[in-house]
Amino acid sequence: MKKVGIAILGLGVVGGGTYRILTKNREFYQRTQEVDLVVESVLEPDAAKLKALGVAPEEIASNIAEVVCNPDVNIIVECIGGTEVAREYVLAALNVGKTVVTSNKELYCKYSHELERAAKRQNAGLYYEASCVGGVPIIRTLLDGVQSNRIESMMGIINGTTNYILTKMSESGAAYEDVLKEAQALGYAEADPDVDVEGYDAAYKLSILASLAFHTKVPFTKVFREGITGISPEDIENGKSLGYRMKLLAIGKQTHEGIEVRVHPAFVRKDHPLASVGGSFNAIFLSGDSVGDVMLYGKGAGEFPTGSAIVSDIIYAATHSENKYSPFKNTATADKGVRFVSDFRSAYYMRLTVTDRTGVLSKIAAVFGKNNISILEMIQRGCEEDEKATIVIVTHETHEAAIRNAVSKLNASDIAKVESILRVAL
Amino acid sequence: MKKVGIAILGLGVVGGGTYRILTKNREFYQRTQEVDLVVESVLEPDAAKLKALGVAPEEIASNIAEVVCNPDVNIIVECIGGTEVAREYVLAALNVGKTVVTSNKELYCKYSHELERAAKRQNAGLYYEASCVGGVPIIRTLLDGVQSNRIESMMGIINGTTNYILTKMSESGAAYEDVLKEAQALGYAEADPDVDVEGYDAAYKLSILASLAFHTKVPFTKVFREGITGISPEDIENGKSLGYRMKLLAIGKQTHEGIEVRVHPAFVRKDHPLASVGGSFNAIFLSGDSVGDVMLYGKGAGEFPTGSAIVSDIIYAATHSENKYSPFKNTATADKGVRFVSDFRSAYYMRLTVTDRTGVLSKIAAVFGKNNISILEMIQRGCEEDEKATIVIVTHETHEAAIRNAVSKLNASDIAKVESILRVAL
Repeated sequence: MKKVGIAILGLGVVGGGTYRILTKNREFYQRTQEVDLVVESVLEPDAAKLKALGVAPEEIASNIAEVVCNPDVNIIVECIGGTEVAREYVLAALNVGKTVVTSNKELYCKYSHELERAAKRQNAGLYYEASCVGGVPIIRTLLDGVQSNRIESMMGIINGTTNYILTKMSESGAAYEDVLKEAQALGYAEADPDVDVEGYDAAYKLSILASLAFHTKVPFTKVFREGITGISPEDIENGKSLGYRMKLLAIGKQTHEGIEVRVHPAFVRKDHPLASVGGSFNAIFLSGDSVGDVMLYGKGAGEFPTGSAIVSDIIYAATHSENKYSPFKNTATADKGVRFVSDFRSAYYMRLTVTDRTGVLSKIAAVFGKNNISILEMIQRGCEEDEKATIVIVTHETHEAAIRNAVSKLNASDIAKVESILRVAL
Repeated sequence: MKKVGIAILGLGVVGGGTYRILTKNREFYQRTQEVDLVVESVLEPDAAKLKALGVAPEEIASNIAEVVCNPDVNIIVECIGGTEVAREYVLAALNVGKTVVTSNKELYCKYSHELERAAKRQNAGLYYEASCVGGVPIIRTLLDGVQSNRIESMMGIINGTTNYILTKMSESGAAYEDVLKEAQALGYAEADPDVDVEGYDAAYKLSILASLAFHTKVPFTKVFREGITGISPEDIENGKSLGYRMKLLAIGKQTHEGIEVRVHPAFVRKDHPLASVGGSFNAIFLSGDSVGDVMLYGKGAGEFPTGSAIVSDIIYAATHSENKYSPFKNTATADKGVRFVSDFRSAYYMRLTVTDRTGVLSKIAAVFGKNNISILEMIQRGCEEDEKATIVIVTHETHEAAIRNAVSKLNASDIAKVESILRVAL
């Protein structure tokens, strides 16, 4: 039986999960995959982590050189995180021809061109399923499952932390800050939550997935990004009463005008399959020219779901003799010929405060009309105390630029104040 | 660029869709997959079908020998259907070492051992993604996406015709026979609908998927099968009022007691992801020991979704040099050591008619109690005219044998008549 030696760099949540799966299922993989996956080497400075997992002394490496020079190691799993040490170690591994499996979305998103160049030079494998949407095999699906399709669009909930926060806000009516604190206490959000709540994490993943789906490098810098910190319970509640759920969406489209990639909060209709993806679950919806709509759903993070993706990559690498690279020219920046759409189209939700009711609606309608924006639905609520009223408007699809123009016109006038504006994925 | 010659046997719905996709996307595959997929040969006796697709005269073969002996043909796509001619032609192709891609679930389910033996002997590829759940890449996912997992269970809606009928019955309250006629008129059901409505189609697919998931041959004959012809609008309505939706489910489980495979109608809770899979959509829910729950959702049939699966298999075969076979001993019957569970556990829905109300409930409860069946919920409805009442009971999970025993006890007594009994997937 073919024996394949594994090294794991970093025994944090994901590295630890990977170690546990490989150890527990070794016999199972011998039987079902006809391959013996043996953990030969672990690089982890924290002795407590090594002890907790019961790593044998002979498996413990003291530095990266020891790992990459170990002739028994065929596949190196990077679970360090960040882009400094991880990048250095991954390049060291690839440069000696070792296959690398990584869960590091930031690293792969920012340095895929460099890593892939090193891998190609040595004919080493480079796998990164675990970098996107945890255990959900979305990258394998794009490469080997729906690769016969021109992918026209993708729309996903691909960050667990923000989905947990928005689901909780929707259920409890609590404010963002309070739910964030609760999520931090439970370990669902980091002490410094910006990577998640400002949409960076989702944007890294979208950059990777859109590159694969659209067969050209879609750099992180091309992803329009807006986080969830400004979402108010009032807007979530208004949306609910109109039949919508609030989600942080990652959207990628390939149209005649070019590629459109964006991460932002948006309302989705409550009967859309993505609307019922709650808590820490993730899902991604693809549309292909032949297959039509396909959705993949599952746990987006966690030691075992993400470990599952890593070990599936290890098995794939161990049982396929060819190393395949990205099906496009992997570059640091976008190819010159590729156009990106910045003035994208969307439907919009808008909450306005108006003071004087007489003639206000017609004035608002006039501003919308001048910008070619047509209204899908509207709610008006009076507030007796201060003679102010709240108007909630959902528009038909229109250009982002038109909405921005209408908002600044309204705010500059004495007609209405735009309290919030959110996109609606119809 | 590598050129790969394709032959298509049968230009029906799926064969025609495959031809169209290959023709339309040839340049796209050259660019994105670095492979030139050329339709070299088509075997189809119906001249009208050849004409409708604009097949060039030089592509038209007059018999199977011409196709399999054509040195320009590398991959043969079987879209004939049935198990006689298709089996003969597929074996002829494999016996000369041609790779075969098939959408034929009945053929693969019944003869996988024979086909795989022929393929192995000649080191030919054998691909069958299109045989299960149309464009949804469930087979690729089991083989290359979640293969690091011990799959504990799968539960799916994997037949479009029955899902269409049950969705329509649920929406309109119409009777089975009327909805079937409508589905036949619209082309969603065959003139002879038994393969679909009696659950054979789903059982073929479940046999294939369970074999892959559980790493051992799960023969069709081991699949417990019950169709939807006995489903009444009354039961669908009762289920709705209790928060359930009626679906034809394919269920596979791997437990300590053995493998459990069954196809039957069942109620699922309305908030379960499968409950909202309507019309001709299909979905399959997997639980793995590491990844947890994963769901794949998409179109289960149709020329382009199924064509997408075929062309994805063609690309996979054309871009991977190794031919892999089933990760288990492929045999005609189950391996001797494998146990199958026939007395499975489920929750149950039961509709009873009772005549005399006094003491009836306690008598029914006694029958349930004696069989160790506990009741989850109950509705009683009086019917004034004939002094009969309807009682609807949903039980906790119990053994199928216990329920059958309770039903025969009730029917043999003068306490109550069991009008219908349905399983509930809690």
